[in-house]
Amino acid sequence: MSINVRPYWFDGPQYCAWSRDIFLDMRTGGLSGVHATIAYHENFRETVDRIVEWNRLFALHGDLIARARRPADLEASVASGKVAVILGAQNPSVIEADLGLVEALSDLGLSFMQITYNNQSLLGAGWQESEDSGLTRFGREVVREMNRVGMAIDLSHAGERTAVETIEASKRPVTVSHANPRWFRDTARNASDRVIAALRAHDGLLGLSLYPHHVKDGSDCSIADFAAMVARLAEQIGVARIGLGSDLCQGRPDAAVAWMRDGRWTFTTAANPNGPPVFPRPLSWFASNRDFPAIAEALAAVGFAEGEVAGIMGGNWRRFLEAALTPGRT
Amino acid sequence: MSINVRPYWFDGPQYCAWSRDIFLDMRTGGLSGVHATIAYHENFRETVDRIVEWNRLFALHGDLIARARRPADLEASVASGKVAVILGAQNPSVIEADLGLVEALSDLGLSFMQITYNNQSLLGAGWQESEDSGLTRFGREVVREMNRVGMAIDLSHAGERTAVETIEASKRPVTVSHANPRWFRDTARNASDRVIAALRAHDGLLGLSLYPHHVKDGSDCSIADFAAMVARLAEQIGVARIGLGSDLCQGRPDAAVAWMRDGRWTFTTAANPNGPPVFPRPLSWFASNRDFPAIAEALAAVGFAEGEVAGIMGGNWRRFLEAALTPGRT
Repeated sequence: MSINVRPYWFDGPQYCAWSRDIFLDMRTGGLSGVHATIAYHENFRETVDRIVEWNRLFALHGDLIARARRPADLEASVASGKVAVILGAQNPSVIEADLGLVEALSDLGLSFMQITYNNQSLLGAGWQESEDSGLTRFGREVVREMNRVGMAIDLSHAGERTAVETIEASKRPVTVSHANPRWFRDTARNASDRVIAALRAHDGLLGLSLYPHHVKDGSDCSIADFAAMVARLAEQIGVARIGLGSDLCQGRPDAAVAWMRDGRWTFTTAANPNGPPVFPRPLSWFASNRDFPAIAEALAAVGFAEGEVAGIMGGNWRRFLEAALTPGRT
Repeated sequence: MSINVRPYWFDGPQYCAWSRDIFLDMRTGGLSGVHATIAYHENFRETVDRIVEWNRLFALHGDLIARARRPADLEASVASGKVAVILGAQNPSVIEADLGLVEALSDLGLSFMQITYNNQSLLGAGWQESEDSGLTRFGREVVREMNRVGMAIDLSHAGERTAVETIEASKRPVTVSHANPRWFRDTARNASDRVIAALRAHDGLLGLSLYPHHVKDGSDCSIADFAAMVARLAEQIGVARIGLGSDLCQGRPDAAVAWMRDGRWTFTTAANPNGPPVFPRPLSWFASNRDFPAIAEALAAVGFAEGEVAGIMGGNWRRFLEAALTPGRT
């Protein structure tokens, strides 16, 4: 498959209150593709329900969006002018304890899966655990199987040791799809220098989060500070390994935050460094899928060349997805 | 996709005790493709387990067999010399009461589904019900959805009215994949003249069963009598609408018959015109996947031309599957 030079903008994950209006916003915002989260704590059967719901969205809004699983689907979408939507799960709860469900979900259309979501999973430790004992026996099997079927491995909510061990165990490039450097906002949810170095060494991709809790100054972060962070990060990881992973939850009610944090694993409100389970006030310059052009402008203003801006805005994701999702590699 | 003239032998459904030895037998027997039953009474989640088991067989025996879902997979298999295996469910229990599971199972690899298995289903009536009230409201939705996603509709175990109404409702050709004309063996399990006429009118396909309970003289049926039946049937339905649907259960224990008949819908042994739930003694000339060449010879001996024999042995299935499984039609 040839990667042409036409700008290709890609963002994700997002967890919006999906609707026709939001799909129209994506087009207005210039996106060619989006990675949509479909599961935070769902088991396999519940995830199938989420996929069935997406299949209905693809049928009802087929003039605006197209389901994408493989790089060829992304390219077809570029040609048709529709927004390609790639589905992902933030928690390996979707495969329960069943290695065979990796391929089953791959066939059902799942393109991304996180190794863990905040807590210890059957695969590895999340960033909120006090101890991280690394990638588990089952985790190593799942990494191998995800590599085999071509499903992208995501480490955004993993602990540092689990993240580094997974990056090293994977035969395909791995992503931290929605986080920022820890030196930009000091939280264990963000990527440490060690994780950034591992991503660089294994040609991974760091998708930059626009969720206020992940950026300097929170909801008051300026677009100039964000762009300056990207410029410094490019020195550290290489400009070709940076993308956008906005974590946008356009239109979701606060109840979604409680579901993300507490799932069904606690009967109380889980302690969280970000306080009560409500959405923070969005950045003034990024509150919807219409707001991507300003980011491209800010990146150009901070000195990135046109090709570099195109890469950060989506070209780098496109190349990463080619490596991560093409069947039959490794 | 071009259909070339190289002989292509296809059989199914089969429900064998799948193993490497049986896959080798398929090759010895000259098969290019097989339709394998994976469910008789399974619900959705159990069907996923069956698919996962098949995915392991495809991985472990990838030198002999290849998973096929679409006509292009069949053609790839012809080129590679592997036996293409197409998966099917004999009971719509696999979609439960959920229309969205048609597409989900299609994506998971299911190519065939019966509208009903012996009993009343949510879609229509089986041949063992005393009343057949035809295709239901949900049944009409499922027919439309199977047409949309390209999943073959199978009516082998349906009642006559349900069968005819389904054939007429479907926008793609429909199959009775494993049965014989009722005039060859008088059982409601076989296809009536009315069903045969409907298949002819809508370009369907009748796959001929080699299960002793479906043929004249049961286990003692001669290959000459079988071939003579095919010759007469060709006049009735058209030679291009005949295939093989052996119903072969190579290596299965008798317990499989009890599962087929009783599932979980009765606590006793269901009354059956064929007596106790045990496998009948196989035909002397058809007991394994090695035994297909003799059938081709018997068809030639009864007067079929070489091209007609090739059609009945699989070319007709190949054309039917092209019409039934190609995405995006109707």
